[in-house]
Amino acid sequence: MRIAVFGTGMVGQALAARLAEQGHDVMVGTRDVAQALARKDPDGRGTPGFGAWHAGHPRVQVGTFPQAAAHGEILVNATSGTAVLEVLGQAGAERLAGKVLIDVANPLDFSKGVPPTLSVCNTDSLAEQIQRAFPALKVVKALNTTNASVMTDPATVGDADHTLFVCGNDAEAKARVTELVRSFGWKDVLDVGDVTAARATEMLLPIWLRLFGLFKTPLFNFKVVH
Amino acid sequence: MRIAVFGTGMVGQALAARLAEQGHDVMVGTRDVAQALARKDPDGRGTPGFGAWHAGHPRVQVGTFPQAAAHGEILVNATSGTAVLEVLGQAGAERLAGKVLIDVANPLDFSKGVPPTLSVCNTDSLAEQIQRAFPALKVVKALNTTNASVMTDPATVGDADHTLFVCGNDAEAKARVTELVRSFGWKDVLDVGDVTAARATEMLLPIWLRLFGLFKTPLFNFKVVH
Repeated sequence: MRIAVFGTGMVGQALAARLAEQGHDVMVGTRDVAQALARKDPDGRGTPGFGAWHAGHPRVQVGTFPQAAAHGEILVNATSGTAVLEVLGQAGAERLAGKVLIDVANPLDFSKGVPPTLSVCNTDSLAEQIQRAFPALKVVKALNTTNASVMTDPATVGDADHTLFVCGNDAEAKARVTELVRSFGWKDVLDVGDVTAARATEMLLPIWLRLFGLFKTPLFNFKVVH
Repeated sequence: MRIAVFGTGMVGQALAARLAEQGHDVMVGTRDVAQALARKDPDGRGTPGFGAWHAGHPRVQVGTFPQAAAHGEILVNATSGTAVLEVLGQAGAERLAGKVLIDVANPLDFSKGVPPTLSVCNTDSLAEQIQRAFPALKVVKALNTTNASVMTDPATVGDADHTLFVCGNDAEAKARVTELVRSFGWKDVLDVGDVTAARATEMLLPIWLRLFGLFKTPLFNFKVVH
């Protein structure tokens, strides 16, 4: 399948690599292709510079946001929560219409320090903001409650015996995303409702961040026991 | 141990019954004792009227909020999130000073319909509001992420193989609460930090409410797999 991944950071790299490994035709979308490929040095969290990463993943195409949007049958938002509306605006509503967007981002606000707060929550969510701004997109919130390595390979934690939440307004879109994440190894994929349920899954970030601080590793996840 | 439970609803009844069953000297605190005992009919959710419940639990004492506060070495807040500051004010700061308060409540706001939103979240929490208003209390947030039957008997779900979060500023208070909940059958009790971590555990309510809607039963819980 032709898949576009918006974002060149840790999450974008992990998802693009995993999708390409499974034979998908992947294009990473970025603001400025030459600038992105020129980044060779790791960032403060040890994520490789995108150019260095791409040298090891030559099958992954790299394009502008509009090029990636045109390429993808399924689109993945792996940009930061604060950037996504502008990124999708650059991609162009006409190239997004009718497509599935997997929204992996969280509305984390680091402006007041660590731990970050959420820039939107409780009565609204990032996924709903995207859905309202681009009504012809089929937004599916998913994969936002784990870090990049768990999301792309859930078996790294507890033999994949834990839960992935998906939500969105379009049942067929959720079914396609569920199939895609099952191919990563997800076994317990739980559809928690329409796009307003993204409030609930984005509001898992504060406990996720506490647990990350406690365990000193992102290799954990929530399991719904019932 | 002498324990006071503030609140006569489903959670107060479940906790008072369980604590009394284990031999603790329990007093339930309420605004008006005669009025509370006069309630014989179940409410809309099927919770017995407090008088009917008390007829079956005669060993549990019933007192006003000040009487209950004076009685308890450990205090339990099982009132609604919107009522707690007024209830503790009635109980009297001088009777609360130095004591452990287990805050089981959630700041649920039903004024805009169902599902409720949180009246405080993200940059503050109910537990922090209590701690600020009554600085001599040792507030421990716990048991707020499950329903009454799971909190008092965790083995009703998945052989108790799931997680209870506790947080608060006082390490000894958290240790006492941990010991108490272990006596209910909790096996995985996770200390997630100081009282500000209550933001994170209270923000689990939106996903809890979604799952309750999905499963049509409150008999589930989260397990942190790591």
